[in-house]
Amino acid sequence: MIRGQPPRTADLVVRNIGRLASLAGPAPRLGPAMRDLAFVDDAVLASKGSRIVYAGPAGDCPPLEAKRELDAGGAMVVPGFVDAHTHIAFAGDRDEEIVRRLAGASYKQIAADGGGIVRSVTATRAAPVEALERGIRARLDEMLLQGTTTVEVKSGYGLETAAEIRSLEAIRGASARHPVQVVPTFLGAHEVPVEHRGNRGAYVDLLVEEMIPEVARRGLARFCDVFCEDGVFSVDESRRILETARAHGFALRVHADELGWTGGAELAAALGARSADHLLFASEAGIAAMARAGCVATLLPSAAFYLRLGRFAPARAMIDAGVAVALATDANPGGGLSPSLPFAMTIGCFAMGLSLEEALVAATLNAAYSLDVHRDAGSLEAGKRADFVVLRSARLLDLVRVGVGAIRTVVASGRVVVESGQRVE
Amino acid sequence: MIRGQPPRTADLVVRNIGRLASLAGPAPRLGPAMRDLAFVDDAVLASKGSRIVYAGPAGDCPPLEAKRELDAGGAMVVPGFVDAHTHIAFAGDRDEEIVRRLAGASYKQIAADGGGIVRSVTATRAAPVEALERGIRARLDEMLLQGTTTVEVKSGYGLETAAEIRSLEAIRGASARHPVQVVPTFLGAHEVPVEHRGNRGAYVDLLVEEMIPEVARRGLARFCDVFCEDGVFSVDESRRILETARAHGFALRVHADELGWTGGAELAAALGARSADHLLFASEAGIAAMARAGCVATLLPSAAFYLRLGRFAPARAMIDAGVAVALATDANPGGGLSPSLPFAMTIGCFAMGLSLEEALVAATLNAAYSLDVHRDAGSLEAGKRADFVVLRSARLLDLVRVGVGAIRTVVASGRVVVESGQRVE
Repeated sequence: MIRGQPPRTADLVVRNIGRLASLAGPAPRLGPAMRDLAFVDDAVLASKGSRIVYAGPAGDCPPLEAKRELDAGGAMVVPGFVDAHTHIAFAGDRDEEIVRRLAGASYKQIAADGGGIVRSVTATRAAPVEALERGIRARLDEMLLQGTTTVEVKSGYGLETAAEIRSLEAIRGASARHPVQVVPTFLGAHEVPVEHRGNRGAYVDLLVEEMIPEVARRGLARFCDVFCEDGVFSVDESRRILETARAHGFALRVHADELGWTGGAELAAALGARSADHLLFASEAGIAAMARAGCVATLLPSAAFYLRLGRFAPARAMIDAGVAVALATDANPGGGLSPSLPFAMTIGCFAMGLSLEEALVAATLNAAYSLDVHRDAGSLEAGKRADFVVLRSARLLDLVRVGVGAIRTVVASGRVVVESGQRVE
Repeated sequence: MIRGQPPRTADLVVRNIGRLASLAGPAPRLGPAMRDLAFVDDAVLASKGSRIVYAGPAGDCPPLEAKRELDAGGAMVVPGFVDAHTHIAFAGDRDEEIVRRLAGASYKQIAADGGGIVRSVTATRAAPVEALERGIRARLDEMLLQGTTTVEVKSGYGLETAAEIRSLEAIRGASARHPVQVVPTFLGAHEVPVEHRGNRGAYVDLLVEEMIPEVARRGLARFCDVFCEDGVFSVDESRRILETARAHGFALRVHADELGWTGGAELAAALGARSADHLLFASEAGIAAMARAGCVATLLPSAAFYLRLGRFAPARAMIDAGVAVALATDANPGGGLSPSLPFAMTIGCFAMGLSLEEALVAATLNAAYSLDVHRDAGSLEAGKRADFVVLRSARLLDLVRVGVGAIRTVVASGRVVVESGQRVE
């Protein structure tokens, strides 16, 4: 502590931080910079209102008078996690079909029984906005308990104007009553709905002529996303949708090259998309184009794991090419079974070859950059929002030890919202 | 409830169980019987002292006067998990080398810096029995929070008579002061210690002539295990050690065919071992021999995941061949990073192709059979120990959704030891 200064006031001070992973520095982190983190040993973190006023060595900390003090007990503090890809605005569940798939049923059998995304669309169209909102809040709670303080939420189970608008209103409503910060994305182009399968062009027309302008007019989403994949939306269809969205002021994200190569990464780069996601089959040229365009690669290893895709995105090649890699959960009713970014980090490390430091940056600062919220989130620096996680130990490794309960306390916007692994307030 | 009977007394009654996975029936479950579970909807579970006095439909339950009642809130109850393969009797940690491996360091580099099993052996030999015991208890606590109520613990970081004995005494001491039931295994044949590498035969002589008789004389272990693998103990060495152990009254387990095929499965079957473990490279003939011999296949998918072995044991082929499959964590300081059987179930389902029901039987009843404790543990039937887990929902699927906090309450020997995910009492 620096003596001889008059004490400043703070609302919350966390003392006795064994190691602070502040991740202070530029966003995003590219290539080798992803693993070159400055940890601060013996640190203090202080906030006033929702903002950080100090994050650094205890020895350099000015005198502070705080309303509330937390003792980190020598443990590590990391930024609140940023989940840059989720589909948690839905009604109903598809647990039974997941259980059937595990028992050997094929996708075809399940689709024949009305399963798959169609089931979620039917339930979501029928759900009142309050029910959707309640579901989203419950899922945000699960995420918060796992240390996530910022979540991107996509629409995409409405697939008609009214139900997409209602989904986005539910996302906004849930966000207004929840400590997690929510970034809304319009994903009307998640799938061609059953009623348009005989004439898919008409659905693209509807997206371009009615849905995108209406969502823009209502200011319900910051991003527009498209599921660009063989059998879903082609590269040409995706381009038309995304160019329209861009003209309406949306920033862009793309589901790209998940199940096979279609050129989604190249398209995302060409359109200046903020992020291309999944990317299991991204080409070398696509990766190089993303690097040149500054397009983030948002990787979703939990989805590849739960969907048993048998491979993961080439994260190392992306980092070597100078792409900023982010990690997200892809939480969704069909196979995105885990709301946990630490689990995405775990698979990122042990199945995709990320180092622990790279996985941490990917789940925080780079993810925040992919959502254009890096000025507020993703690292612990004075002026940013006080979103952080106090671990139970000084070991970053504990985050990727599934089942050890690595997270003790979660603070969102300067408020303690999780203590001893339980929701409080 | 059956009326007209005088109420019986119980110490603990759990009512309002939405689904009871009692797993009542024969142990082990083989082949198709592994997925053919009888769930009881609307059930009651009651215990007196440490034992179950009723587990079945609420409608058939006799009148009960209980000292304590729990309301399961319509959620599911499953047997306490049985972890049939762990190495948690060690001192020190190897976190730094795991972090370095993730950052790209090779096993060779790490071994050159004194890392690997040698580091654990050095620390364990230097540790007083109290420190070992404290470490074991802390790890048993982690496991209990994840629903595990029975744990096999191996020695094997002493690799000299005194340190192996001390490890087994620490296992016994920890067990006496912890609600988890512990089954001790002697694994002096975990590795050839550095001082014997010039003359490995002398270490096998030491095992056979001194260590096994001494452990037997002191009654410190129920099982003897050998790491049978190229570069560790050969099939011939393993046979000599295991035959000696059998003659001294130990039941047998074998680390078999983990990193390559050596014939470990065939050896385990030939010697009448209770279990062969790992088995990533088990041959068809080895699997068939295990089926004929009634040898359990204890599979450790979390180890394969964390060690990045790039494959998993052929669980489906084993089940099809009529082998009883069990799951365990392989918790250990080098790469067995997860103490969670639900996580082993998760990988079992999504990477090895087990159904959810098969994974549950593998982590409970079949594991109990592999430890010869199936008369006390592994299913919920009157007379067995009251070891069970109350989930937060009626969905078994939640156990394999990493990060949702599926476990609400854990009861061990009739005592509530975990509530709302926290250790109590």
